[in-house]
Amino acid sequence: EAHKLLVLAGDGIGPEVMREVARIVHWLDANRGLKLDITEELVGAASLAVHGVPIRDEVIDLARKSDAVLFGSVGDPAWGHVGFDKRPEVAILKLRKELELFANLRPAQLFDALIDASALKPEVVRGLDIMIVRETVGGIYFGEPRGIETLPDGSRRGINTEVYTTSEIERVARVAFEMARQRSNRVCSVEKCNVMESGLLWKEVVTDLHKREYQDVELSHMLADNCAMQLVRNPNQFDVIVTGNLFGDILSDLASMLTGSLGMLPSATLGIVREDGKRNALYEPIHGSAPDIAGKGIANPLAQILSFAMLLRYSLNRAEDADLIEKAVSNVLASGLRTADIMSPGMARVGTDMMGQAVVREMEKL
Amino acid sequence: EAHKLLVLAGDGIGPEVMREVARIVHWLDANRGLKLDITEELVGAASLAVHGVPIRDEVIDLARKSDAVLFGSVGDPAWGHVGFDKRPEVAILKLRKELELFANLRPAQLFDALIDASALKPEVVRGLDIMIVRETVGGIYFGEPRGIETLPDGSRRGINTEVYTTSEIERVARVAFEMARQRSNRVCSVEKCNVMESGLLWKEVVTDLHKREYQDVELSHMLADNCAMQLVRNPNQFDVIVTGNLFGDILSDLASMLTGSLGMLPSATLGIVREDGKRNALYEPIHGSAPDIAGKGIANPLAQILSFAMLLRYSLNRAEDADLIEKAVSNVLASGLRTADIMSPGMARVGTDMMGQAVVREMEKL
Ligand SMILES: CC(C)[C@H](C(=O)O)[C@@H](O)C(=O)O
Ligand SMILES: CC(C)[C@H](C(=O)O)[C@@H](O)C(=O)O
Repeated sequence: EAHKLLVLAGDGIGPEVMREVARIVHWLDANRGLKLDITEELVGAASLAVHGVPIRDEVIDLARKSDAVLFGSVGDPAWGHVGFDKRPEVAILKLRKELELFANLRPAQLFDALIDASALKPEVVRGLDIMIVRETVGGIYFGEPRGIETLPDGSRRGINTEVYTTSEIERVARVAFEMARQRSNRVCSVEKCNVMESGLLWKEVVTDLHKREYQDVELSHMLADNCAMQLVRNPNQFDVIVTGNLFGDILSDLASMLTGSLGMLPSATLGIVREDGKRNALYEPIHGSAPDIAGKGIANPLAQILSFAMLLRYSLNRAEDADLIEKAVSNVLASGLRTADIMSPGMARVGTDMMGQAVVREMEKL
Repeated sequence: EAHKLLVLAGDGIGPEVMREVARIVHWLDANRGLKLDITEELVGAASLAVHGVPIRDEVIDLARKSDAVLFGSVGDPAWGHVGFDKRPEVAILKLRKELELFANLRPAQLFDALIDASALKPEVVRGLDIMIVRETVGGIYFGEPRGIETLPDGSRRGINTEVYTTSEIERVARVAFEMARQRSNRVCSVEKCNVMESGLLWKEVVTDLHKREYQDVELSHMLADNCAMQLVRNPNQFDVIVTGNLFGDILSDLASMLTGSLGMLPSATLGIVREDGKRNALYEPIHGSAPDIAGKGIANPLAQILSFAMLLRYSLNRAEDADLIEKAVSNVLASGLRTADIMSPGMARVGTDMMGQAVVREMEKL
């Protein structure tokens, strides 16, 4: 029976890089018997243009019934003026919330062939392999009250609320501890407990869970400001980092930029286990919709392709296909092909479609 | 008449590095007629140990009546267990709030002699000179409601509130625009307006003020996650960055770590103008209390010394003395002396007091 896949390319470079995934899907279908039942829907600015909303309820329902969601990117600033509820970004925020996709796994891994693309010295980033586990359905992204109110004197106040409950913290910390056991067995929990009570609770809950169930894992705690510094000073000190929604947003982008290859990094967001026994899951590149280069055919499709590989591995239980894709990507890089974002002297510059084609060619050879 | 100075060394390495400032004060008194009326008080863990509170109300009053406050650092985690109101950090938070010290100016400047100490490639950080203007009396640091509440089922919820008003945003943006005019005339305003209404208001207010009064300054806007990435990718794109309390905490620490010389960087926090026509102001190093190296005599005193230079320049109108100190520091570095934090091969390693003595010796020669 075919796996149900919902594909949401989004806006900006989303559709361009998603086309390169389609290439790979076709190849896997023809050559390795991958049967996918794919539905494509508009989200973000693309949905706003046609339907007037960043994501329709039908699409959320479809996502709920799919085996996995492959997401592109959303964020076209052209829609900045139409009101807060009509941001293209609402699409991804709603998907996370409605499907309870609470644990965003963001690997920051250095591709050896790309060590020169990092702004950091090779000796600082060599071998970098961090996994950031970011909470994605709580914190200040969703807390109430929120909004902008006008005061009697005509001035205004903007308000947002950071809220974290014991169970929200515990379930994401559990994902982090489990990840650590499959890696280097170390978790660093990051908050701002010297200033925020929500951070104080965060630290306590993580500490308690560790004591009860994960004493075999090494646990440390770090303030968010210090973590930002340590990521630059000596990123190799980290294995798994677990943190809230807002700190995770900033620190994971920072960590992926350390590798110099943001356009290379995939992510998975895991949700609750449904009644049918399947776990909600969404896969998306870490990079955004990059409206400045959209439509130019120069975007790097590898993060989107590698997100699809993660999807095959974690949601469809097809590790061999995932391995094949990852190996092909690595061979393509070794052969010297580079999109603009990872270009370095002596390498061959290619566009989005050439890069996608090259990956399929490598898969054929393997 | 003598200038009234309140000296608050704090805990951790605070007292050690402050001793080196005392050396310089004596020299300026004896040689350049600097007359200071200095009061020293305990804050942070040092005050907790003696008075049971992180800062006494009398000390806040003294600060209000001083021409300037020279602050060391606070944050000894040994006091982590005694409750949220007894954190050593409350000392600095209360001072900022009570004196309405709303604009924290944090330069991230590369000292050419220290380019090797950066984790970033020399070509990425060469010439780095960013000024971060961080709001320090609003946002999630102080918003109500806040706290940890226990729910009927025994679980708990941690809550903090981010609040920004039009006038809070406007006054700190004004400081940023004024700074930019004295520098490269560019301001980048940073928030998370795609997710937070407080960020949306932030962006609107900065845009309005710019349109009304600062059209000669180049203004851009950036999301906080992107800013963290851009600071690593190409930090030299920035001149002045203006942002809220929490983002400023993280981004300014990140920016200073780019220079590889956190132990070198001073900061000034400017407040409202008082009835006596003087402006409340506090000067402190960007580094924290570093409890792990406290008492070992190896801390770098230069950030504290340079904070005192800023104080002389901005609060006491003694630019010549400030120049003298800054020139002396630069000569000491050029001569090859290094504390552990900035040590590199071929340089001479010295401790806290040797470094302080060396600065005074250079001042004598100048
Ligand atoms: C698009 C935006 C709402 C989103 C976020 O802030 O979570 C993005 O930055 C991300 O990290 O996935
Ligand atoms: C000590 C702490 C409360 C403080 C802050 O978070 O503001 C520090 O990190 C700083 O940046 O001055």
